[in-house]
Amino acid sequence: MLQNKFHLKSLIDFLKYPSLSTDPNYKPHIESCANWLQTHLQEIGLNTEKHVTPGHPIITAECLSNPNAPTVLIYGHYDVQPEDPLDLWDTPPFEPTIRNGNIYARGASDNKGQIYAHIAAVATLLKETGTLPVNVKFLIEGEEEIGSPNLTPFIEANKEKLKANIALVSDTPMFAKDQPSLCISLRGLAYTEVTLNCLKGDLHSGQHGGPAPNAINELIKLLSQLKDPKTDRVLIPGFYDEVKEIPSEIRKMTKSLKFDETSYKKTIGTSALQGEEEFHPLERIWFRPTCEINGIIGGYTKEGAKTVLPATATAKISCRLVANQSAKKTRAQLKDYLNKIAPSHVQLNFKTYNDGEPVQVSTDSHYVTTALNALETAFKTKPILQGEGGTIPVIADFQKHLGIDTILMGLNLPDDNIHAPNERFSLTNFERGIQASMGFLKNCNAQ
Amino acid sequence: MLQNKFHLKSLIDFLKYPSLSTDPNYKPHIESCANWLQTHLQEIGLNTEKHVTPGHPIITAECLSNPNAPTVLIYGHYDVQPEDPLDLWDTPPFEPTIRNGNIYARGASDNKGQIYAHIAAVATLLKETGTLPVNVKFLIEGEEEIGSPNLTPFIEANKEKLKANIALVSDTPMFAKDQPSLCISLRGLAYTEVTLNCLKGDLHSGQHGGPAPNAINELIKLLSQLKDPKTDRVLIPGFYDEVKEIPSEIRKMTKSLKFDETSYKKTIGTSALQGEEEFHPLERIWFRPTCEINGIIGGYTKEGAKTVLPATATAKISCRLVANQSAKKTRAQLKDYLNKIAPSHVQLNFKTYNDGEPVQVSTDSHYVTTALNALETAFKTKPILQGEGGTIPVIADFQKHLGIDTILMGLNLPDDNIHAPNERFSLTNFERGIQASMGFLKNCNAQ
Repeated sequence: MLQNKFHLKSLIDFLKYPSLSTDPNYKPHIESCANWLQTHLQEIGLNTEKHVTPGHPIITAECLSNPNAPTVLIYGHYDVQPEDPLDLWDTPPFEPTIRNGNIYARGASDNKGQIYAHIAAVATLLKETGTLPVNVKFLIEGEEEIGSPNLTPFIEANKEKLKANIALVSDTPMFAKDQPSLCISLRGLAYTEVTLNCLKGDLHSGQHGGPAPNAINELIKLLSQLKDPKTDRVLIPGFYDEVKEIPSEIRKMTKSLKFDETSYKKTIGTSALQGEEEFHPLERIWFRPTCEINGIIGGYTKEGAKTVLPATATAKISCRLVANQSAKKTRAQLKDYLNKIAPSHVQLNFKTYNDGEPVQVSTDSHYVTTALNALETAFKTKPILQGEGGTIPVIADFQKHLGIDTILMGLNLPDDNIHAPNERFSLTNFERGIQASMGFLKNCNAQ
Repeated sequence: MLQNKFHLKSLIDFLKYPSLSTDPNYKPHIESCANWLQTHLQEIGLNTEKHVTPGHPIITAECLSNPNAPTVLIYGHYDVQPEDPLDLWDTPPFEPTIRNGNIYARGASDNKGQIYAHIAAVATLLKETGTLPVNVKFLIEGEEEIGSPNLTPFIEANKEKLKANIALVSDTPMFAKDQPSLCISLRGLAYTEVTLNCLKGDLHSGQHGGPAPNAINELIKLLSQLKDPKTDRVLIPGFYDEVKEIPSEIRKMTKSLKFDETSYKKTIGTSALQGEEEFHPLERIWFRPTCEINGIIGGYTKEGAKTVLPATATAKISCRLVANQSAKKTRAQLKDYLNKIAPSHVQLNFKTYNDGEPVQVSTDSHYVTTALNALETAFKTKPILQGEGGTIPVIADFQKHLGIDTILMGLNLPDDNIHAPNERFSLTNFERGIQASMGFLKNCNAQ
């Protein structure tokens, strides 16, 4: 308990740094935060390094206790989202405040609180026994909230330093309060921007309306062919070719979860859910790919009326991917399809953004069993397996460059307001998280 | 000839005023221009009035020579479009310059040069004979380029003052150089903005993509049902109900016109014309209604990628109308149709903008015959009848509130750069325009 008080005090220190990665004005704060983190990891008994990157520094730390034991690579990030809108915070985002069993601060859940649970677990084990049951390496970056632009090159260049048997990451939510879960899949992402041109310049809709093409009309014709309007199935040829069927035991488990469709509809503000009817809403989010238009612009969009036939229109289209789809292949399929259905009098230009590959964690590994047991002991509740609809590109990097799976041990709750005002982290989950991390590290040596 | 030199000098004075109606900073210039115009009309022998409006002044002038003769109401505007981009002008827009038989200045064609041709015609007749063969009334406004917000109320409030047998307007282009034309129809306009909502707020496409609706997807589904993708026919029920067939003699004449489709495609920059194949491209512009999307916006439209499921998306939709369609009815049809095809989980909100009713001039009137004869005499070429794809709302107002038709006697050329840099007016057309106007005024008394 005294030990936990010490950890809470340290977490508060960690949370006080306004380590925003996106705003160059906060560069000094992010540097101070990285320095604090390195010093702290050093003080609890790890060998640490601070790595300069073209962006913000990466901190690594390790304690290699036993050459015969497996090595666990624990990943997290010390950068945080911007705090705005500031006026919606009940207490200042960088003055961590405890009330109702939660700690409120920007980064409390995402990700300082969660990564710190693992730091506290390692510190506790080291303090209690002077050594660790397994080898532990930490990899903590400062650019996760801006898309980790320097992390993949770092991993590629430091394969030996980061060599491990399993990764451990807490950056996904638990299914619900008092319902711990292990995340077994992440969706990937292929994001494309398409610009359609069909005229030399904008035309007057009176003087040319009739025979002249209109870029918005043309773009809409194409976009309306992305999904079947009745079934919501994606119509891009080959899109589903590599998609694996959801195993029947996972489907059964998903259906058995407490999911209140009425309350979900109310939360997001719709009277009818969309998507593939043959799949449970959670399956649609966790285990099924999507194709969505995230943005569209063309013609006159300001106040009032302008009678223009636009020469150009642009849409941003992203596909969420599931195993075994690939971002590169899906994007090529989308591009080929749009080029194929586009009439010859329009020109399409494509722009691509960062990929994120889908991840599926193999569930028959003893690390998964160990993690499930550790969670059950800490939370006193049987954990479930779940998917995650979002993307954490680094997890695919661990698979690709280090050849290892990841234990996705979510500790925060779905309503902890990450990326929003009044972000918080439950102190109960903080304590249980430390226990679960210790339980995992203690037992993952036993195959 | 001396007389014409005097007119040219006066036109140059008229063109020197930077009478931009849209920019409040130019208010003093537009006032000076209105004052110059009133003084000038007074000096040539008309009774003039300057009418204050909530916007820019309206100038009226009249010479009622003969109570038994018909009255011709000549309409025009003394305000001009902004001059930008200024650096593309070869000579300053408000320093009228003569070269290659043209006068270059902002407003040269639209509309100072054209309205001044009629002023010069009236001045010449008065100077030559001391009287006019018909009664003439001028109505010259200063807000045409900003949508004539104060003109309809003025006409409604001054029906007696503006009472006439026929209106005469030069604010449409000739068909081509050396091919005079009389415009017999104008398309109307019904402009609507529709905003679709389907969520409480934007959602994360990873956390909710699958079961959650997406406002852009939903809007595109609706917009793709506005026109048949194969025939380009508008699918709004009732849309074509009131549309009159194009008379066979007009179809025959349109087909006989020199229209080079290859060169038109090159001019606008397309490899294939769109629209209703069974109609000649000029018929599609002049005599057929359209439904076009003039603007669309939704979701994330700035640089880069944002994985958002948008809660809202907006489109601006305008229909060009032909006789006997009505803006009000068409807009109601569009609204009913979108509401009907929209699924119950989306909400549509409509915003409407200024209407413009379509105009068809009855071709069997002796005023039309007189105008055709006057044009043929002045241009030494048989004029054709043509339509105009754009809208001049005041012409419908003349029909509605004064009960009169309008002679649309275009004097400028299609390539005179109206609304663009290096606007110009052919001095030959200026002279021929004065002759045509005089010919019309002299002969429209003879029924």
